[in-house]
Amino acid sequence: MTDIKNPVIDANMVAEHNAQQQADLQADYDALGGMLARRGVDIEKLTALAGTFAVAVPSWGAGTGGTRFARFPGRGEPRNVFEKMEDCAVINQLTRATPAVSLHFPWDRTDDPAALKEIADGYGLGFDAVNSNTFQDQQGQDHTYKYGSLSAQSGAARAQAVQHNIDCIELGQKLGSKALTVWVGDGANFPGQNNLRGSLERYLDSMRDIYGALPADWNVFIEHKLFEPAFYATVIADWGTSFACATELGPKAKCLVDLGHHAPNTNIEMIVARLAQFGKLGGFHFNDSKYGDDDLDSGSINPFQLFLVFNELADAAERAKSGATDFNPAYMLDQSHNVTDPIESLMSSAVEVQRAFVQAALVDRNALRGFQESNDVLNAAQTLKKAYRTDVSAILAMARVRAGGAADPVAAYRSSGYRDGAAERRPAKAGASSSGIV
Amino acid sequence: MTDIKNPVIDANMVAEHNAQQQADLQADYDALGGMLARRGVDIEKLTALAGTFAVAVPSWGAGTGGTRFARFPGRGEPRNVFEKMEDCAVINQLTRATPAVSLHFPWDRTDDPAALKEIADGYGLGFDAVNSNTFQDQQGQDHTYKYGSLSAQSGAARAQAVQHNIDCIELGQKLGSKALTVWVGDGANFPGQNNLRGSLERYLDSMRDIYGALPADWNVFIEHKLFEPAFYATVIADWGTSFACATELGPKAKCLVDLGHHAPNTNIEMIVARLAQFGKLGGFHFNDSKYGDDDLDSGSINPFQLFLVFNELADAAERAKSGATDFNPAYMLDQSHNVTDPIESLMSSAVEVQRAFVQAALVDRNALRGFQESNDVLNAAQTLKKAYRTDVSAILAMARVRAGGAADPVAAYRSSGYRDGAAERRPAKAGASSSGIV
Amino acid sequence: MTDIKNPVIDANMVAEHNAQQQADLQADYDALGGMLARRGVDIEKLTALAGTFAVAVPSWGAGTGGTRFARFPGRGEPRNVFEKMEDCAVINQLTRATPAVSLHFPWDRTDDPAALKEIADGYGLGFDAVNSNTFQDQQGQDHTYKYGSLSAQSGAARAQAVQHNIDCIELGQKLGSKALTVWVGDGANFPGQNNLRGSLERYLDSMRDIYGALPADWNVFIEHKLFEPAFYATVIADWGTSFACATELGPKAKCLVDLGHHAPNTNIEMIVARLAQFGKLGGFHFNDSKYGDDDLDSGSINPFQLFLVFNELADAAERAKSGATDFNPAYMLDQSHNVTDPIESLMSSAVEVQRAFVQAALVDRNALRGFQESNDVLNAAQTLKKAYRTDVSAILAMARVRAGGAADPVAAYRSSGYRDGAAERRPAKAGASSSGIV
Amino acid sequence: MTDIKNPVIDANMVAEHNAQQQADLQADYDALGGMLARRGVDIEKLTALAGTFAVAVPSWGAGTGGTRFARFPGRGEPRNVFEKMEDCAVINQLTRATPAVSLHFPWDRTDDPAALKEIADGYGLGFDAVNSNTFQDQQGQDHTYKYGSLSAQSGAARAQAVQHNIDCIELGQKLGSKALTVWVGDGANFPGQNNLRGSLERYLDSMRDIYGALPADWNVFIEHKLFEPAFYATVIADWGTSFACATELGPKAKCLVDLGHHAPNTNIEMIVARLAQFGKLGGFHFNDSKYGDDDLDSGSINPFQLFLVFNELADAAERAKSGATDFNPAYMLDQSHNVTDPIESLMSSAVEVQRAFVQAALVDRNALRGFQESNDVLNAAQTLKKAYRTDVSAILAMARVRAGGAADPVAAYRSSGYRDGAAERRPAKAGASSSGIV
Repeated sequence: MTDIKNPVIDANMVAEHNAQQQADLQADYDALGGMLARRGVDIEKLTALAGTFAVAVPSWGAGTGGTRFARFPGRGEPRNVFEKMEDCAVINQLTRATPAVSLHFPWDRTDDPAALKEIADGYGLGFDAVNSNTFQDQQGQDHTYKYGSLSAQSGAARAQAVQHNIDCIELGQKLGSKALTVWVGDGANFPGQNNLRGSLERYLDSMRDIYGALPADWNVFIEHKLFEPAFYATVIADWGTSFACATELGPKAKCLVDLGHHAPNTNIEMIVARLAQFGKLGGFHFNDSKYGDDDLDSGSINPFQLFLVFNELADAAERAKSGATDFNPAYMLDQSHNVTDPIESLMSSAVEVQRAFVQAALVDRNALRGFQESNDVLNAAQTLKKAYRTDVSAILAMARVRAGGAADPVAAYRSSGYRDGAAERRPAKAGASSSGIV
Repeated sequence: MTDIKNPVIDANMVAEHNAQQQADLQADYDALGGMLARRGVDIEKLTALAGTFAVAVPSWGAGTGGTRFARFPGRGEPRNVFEKMEDCAVINQLTRATPAVSLHFPWDRTDDPAALKEIADGYGLGFDAVNSNTFQDQQGQDHTYKYGSLSAQSGAARAQAVQHNIDCIELGQKLGSKALTVWVGDGANFPGQNNLRGSLERYLDSMRDIYGALPADWNVFIEHKLFEPAFYATVIADWGTSFACATELGPKAKCLVDLGHHAPNTNIEMIVARLAQFGKLGGFHFNDSKYGDDDLDSGSINPFQLFLVFNELADAAERAKSGATDFNPAYMLDQSHNVTDPIESLMSSAVEVQRAFVQAALVDRNALRGFQESNDVLNAAQTLKKAYRTDVSAILAMARVRAGGAADPVAAYRSSGYRDGAAERRPAKAGASSSGIV
Repeated sequence: MTDIKNPVIDANMVAEHNAQQQADLQADYDALGGMLARRGVDIEKLTALAGTFAVAVPSWGAGTGGTRFARFPGRGEPRNVFEKMEDCAVINQLTRATPAVSLHFPWDRTDDPAALKEIADGYGLGFDAVNSNTFQDQQGQDHTYKYGSLSAQSGAARAQAVQHNIDCIELGQKLGSKALTVWVGDGANFPGQNNLRGSLERYLDSMRDIYGALPADWNVFIEHKLFEPAFYATVIADWGTSFACATELGPKAKCLVDLGHHAPNTNIEMIVARLAQFGKLGGFHFNDSKYGDDDLDSGSINPFQLFLVFNELADAAERAKSGATDFNPAYMLDQSHNVTDPIESLMSSAVEVQRAFVQAALVDRNALRGFQESNDVLNAAQTLKKAYRTDVSAILAMARVRAGGAADPVAAYRSSGYRDGAAERRPAKAGASSSGIV
Repeated sequence: MTDIKNPVIDANMVAEHNAQQQADLQADYDALGGMLARRGVDIEKLTALAGTFAVAVPSWGAGTGGTRFARFPGRGEPRNVFEKMEDCAVINQLTRATPAVSLHFPWDRTDDPAALKEIADGYGLGFDAVNSNTFQDQQGQDHTYKYGSLSAQSGAARAQAVQHNIDCIELGQKLGSKALTVWVGDGANFPGQNNLRGSLERYLDSMRDIYGALPADWNVFIEHKLFEPAFYATVIADWGTSFACATELGPKAKCLVDLGHHAPNTNIEMIVARLAQFGKLGGFHFNDSKYGDDDLDSGSINPFQLFLVFNELADAAERAKSGATDFNPAYMLDQSHNVTDPIESLMSSAVEVQRAFVQAALVDRNALRGFQESNDVLNAAQTLKKAYRTDVSAILAMARVRAGGAADPVAAYRSSGYRDGAAERRPAKAGASSSGIV
């Protein structure tokens, strides 16, 4: 069990919750263990593997999200990075699957990174990739990003955006981060607004400056997105552009895949396979979507797709292992919670991603290879489906309980009264969005 | 157990197969039963329910499909309606979930419907909706459908298409069918080719003639499709048009939903809910797709969507029950098997659809209503996910075994040697497609 | 020439602008007239027709729009309905194609509708359909719309939303409007959040109350939209649902088509044809889009589609004329101007829509019918293309000049210095969006 | 005027046709010339430029196409490569814009390439890129492509596919081609059918062998396509994969863009800009589409998109010129003509592509750059629209007439009676598709 120095939720409360669930959980676990044993699978190995899973939580996800039409605030939303960290601590304490936080600057900027790091340590939290923000104008900013940031026509705007990214790296270093994620909204709303090629040339120039400021052990992740906020042409719109840019920049530059940033009908797991093959898979922003960048809870719309992504990751990990090479893409959640308690959504989403990870580990890869080699298409497909159909809930719960988390994180959270307390401690600021995003 | 007079596969072979699987199946079934009992669910009720499920098999699905680029024939494909019935008999014998066949005329036309019906009886098979075909020209046909059929400018072509549909009804009556499914490929490849409104007016005129020929206890199902073979504008392109036409025609006209016939990102389960609400849900063509009318195996691409469709059907059935009204949409598979043995694909697809049916029955509808009424969005969503995540494979297998089918239909089929026998008995006709479709 | 009592831009300035353009315009007009004459078309008839065209301007379009990520304000944005009217007056004065304004409540609520109407009269402006807003919570509102408005589970929220719509009707009556446009963002972000059918039943109940409050000469327009702000299921998501609801409600209820509210690949002109055929085409929100509800300037992305929409409208108008029935759908712009001066975008967009209207009038409908009847597909398609390819810019400019508008509205506007004056008179309110929408 | 040694259509007939059109054409041309002069543009330069345009015709496009549902043959379809060449000769004779033919093997295989070349010479035709075909099984072929060709699991199937491509190169050399276009349908219909990465590794291995067989002055074009015939995952599905493969293979490998091979909503002109920037734009298959790979006539659905593609090509050409580098992408039509006379469609499509080329040349690039640099978005957009709106029909017609083609190719073709003659000379083979594709 991972010890947490300063747990936010009373550890006894969690223990009591688990005790109440224990009998049923053990019975379900044993029943599943028997089913798996009949398939030649050792449940204990899976449970141990589940315990190794980690996905970072986005600090901005702790606040209620919104759309361009409205934001309907929730109670007790965090008002600063310290309150966000407290919420993230709850998430990890109960799920034991989210030991790192991904910060967003300047939203989470602090003048005292040491203090922030110390608090995080107390919560048992580290810091994953930091995110820069040049898609909004900040109060008092010299140059607007209305017409672009890293790719802007204006040299001054570009320089300001580059400097902001370098600032992010410096702050991230003090916090122990090892990567910078760059997403820009740059693009055009009209044919003709930008020279499509000129925009990418300027973007690459700016990125070369940022790349040059990366510490030796850092990576930069390029995040592409098909559209929004630009509605005709986006500078980094697809994995092809992301890949070409990462290749131009050098080995520290890799591509980040957000599950909601693709054209309709896109086969995302194939993009994962391609980037893995060409050594440019940097990491993920997990979420789910039906239409566009909907930022819904991971696995809520198309859970089979999430499984297929992890099936590719398992394949790549196996290849890396047999090739004795590294394969460590960064996993982060990136969701907007408009109608749920963000803490609940992030907990259950972390579990959903973990579920896909465990289900992918259940795939009998030797059998799969055999069916593929003999063109036994039906059985190849069924090999994946068999793993996917397995309800591994008991494995996930047992892994949590063994690591000190909650058998049922949402139930435990609700009974803790944490949200009520937060609502009291954190009165709403009128009209304000805590997340930075509407 | 349903008795089958003339089983195609040796019943002893099936019994032996089941005997070998018995111990593991019973153990899995008991383990699942325990898990469900801890959730307050009686597995026996679900198994009994599973035994009531039925989905019709399309006669044309027994042959290998293809694309406009190529067809790669399989071994032992059926060459006529009698051989197709034999294959369909295998599917039902082993799955006990497909007791009816949906025929397609003129591909399956016979001059001796009584003989066909007698053979079907022996196989334990009935006949579901019959399908007309006015999207191809048949040898010796007087008027071409190149420029449309029921909506053609040419009155002669329209009259010919109407008469063909009436012929289908007459033949269907002799076979015991109770519905006609009308899908036309009519439409335009160019803006301007057709007057969009004029085409639908002519379609409606033609359909009124067909509607007038329906026996009292028959329905006509209007099947819409976004595109293909028409690539600019299709006369019956969406559920809105289908619904408007069904409304114009009268109570015997209903809408048929094919899961692959919608625009990208369409929420199909909502269309199901709408048609159920307005009393026009006639039935389904089940399959799966990622891009267009891909006609892939049901549940192979997006199994959660299939579950959500059945979740709506369960909701509608519950409403009908409490309102003491009828709710009996027709369920049919409609798939194209290009790289698998069609019999195997149809068996496993029938099981996938049945799986979604059983999972939907697992939804705790009272709890769901409560969460919906209190806007507890997270728990409402989890209520569906909990049912969906349940691996009901053992229930499906047990229901099959109890009904006389095979614990593992594909394995039993393979060990039966049926395909090898078919390959010997049915030498390929050079260049021919047995299915009618490339 | 339409007299405007209180022109916002100095009429002499406009006259001078036109005088400078006169020679070139006349030469272009004559050249085009000659080309048309050689095709048997009288340019003067087209110019007269162009002069009859009108499209309403949305009051909210006068402010700079934004996305959920950011809003980059422009200079001199209107801060209230009176300033919005002033901007709308400029648009109509220079284009003479936008004689009505579509208001949005409560954004544009006024306690003195008589004063607003008088000012509008002075500008030569009337009021088109009024829009209700139940997709945002307003300060001091009793019940939240976080979980829906007209379809909410909460009866109190529904009643509040119904009453707001009735208030809109009452205010609209005082201003001379004749229609209410109802768009709700109601829907779900998760499968299970709402009972899909229950939501529509509640929506219909609410709409029946609103319908009952309509004056005898009013219509209510139901506006559908595929997604956003709801990202899994939207209550009024497609034209099929809109049509079914309008049919349920009665003859005063019609469907409103926003060009950006459809699934990818949807054939919008066919939806126009269908609604016209079934008597339910209420009106349009014109804009353009590439991905979703992008709200880009009309005709900026797919001008041929806009032409094809007007081709259907011309067909419907011709049918109505020969049938001596009414056909008067409402035309409104609905755009979000993120990177342009809203006045410039609205002026050029109005001209683009007018261009499509005139090009559609150029279609030789007798020839088209002949080609359709003889299945001469290529020439049928070319008949549309020929009209579409015609550059009618000189006709549009001449119609404007003759009506008192500007030959080149954007150039005239820029030389007027109106924006500079507005920027001085209207200092920005910090952080505020004048449009209501981010 | 280009002399054609053996014109298929009587040259006097063409001259007579032109003489009849001469007065009107000259008047239209003069009127347009005046309009352009007032904008500072010299019409003669544009007409001269139009005369330099060339796009290759696909041999397979001369036959009637079809869908997987049906093919409705036309009259007088070509039955072999010589008859296809005759039809292509007509197209070029009348349009003077299609001086090369793109062949498809084995459909167009000949044992006497010298004879074919001589006949082509007489028609004034050359040979553009040759196309290999490993998406169909040919009679008597040793190994099936049912489960893939260049990426198949079977080494024998891969070797056979490689050898076929090498054969294509050898035959192409004898005909004077300089490039091989490789499109494979390889992919999967089910998750699990293929190892996604393994498939691409095998594809790359195969392509390395083909690349090695390229003559020094040849290129190989990799053609990607999102889906069909594979409906879950296609090996070369997008430009990113195509680009990565072309990069792996070397400088002779480039990417081919087919306008219909992308996901919905894709910004194709941006892909063109990206490939040009990174030196990998090999060429185009022009056509148009609304849904998928619809293969409709170029410019028939979204002519503005075609213009925007040429706008990027003009930008790239200007950059290449100022950088003194080469920029010569190959232009080919690739369409399926299901309801029109293929010769008519190919003629009018060539003209549509030429139209976009000329309109792109009309863009005032200096003004555009200025508007872009000053973020005058509206005028930047209008600069493109102004060029696009210009009806350059008279320029295209004049360029044709001056080169010896027909003022109105379709009208001239119809009056020539060519199709009637072909129908007599080429009686239909029962059931056969001349194009190779259904």
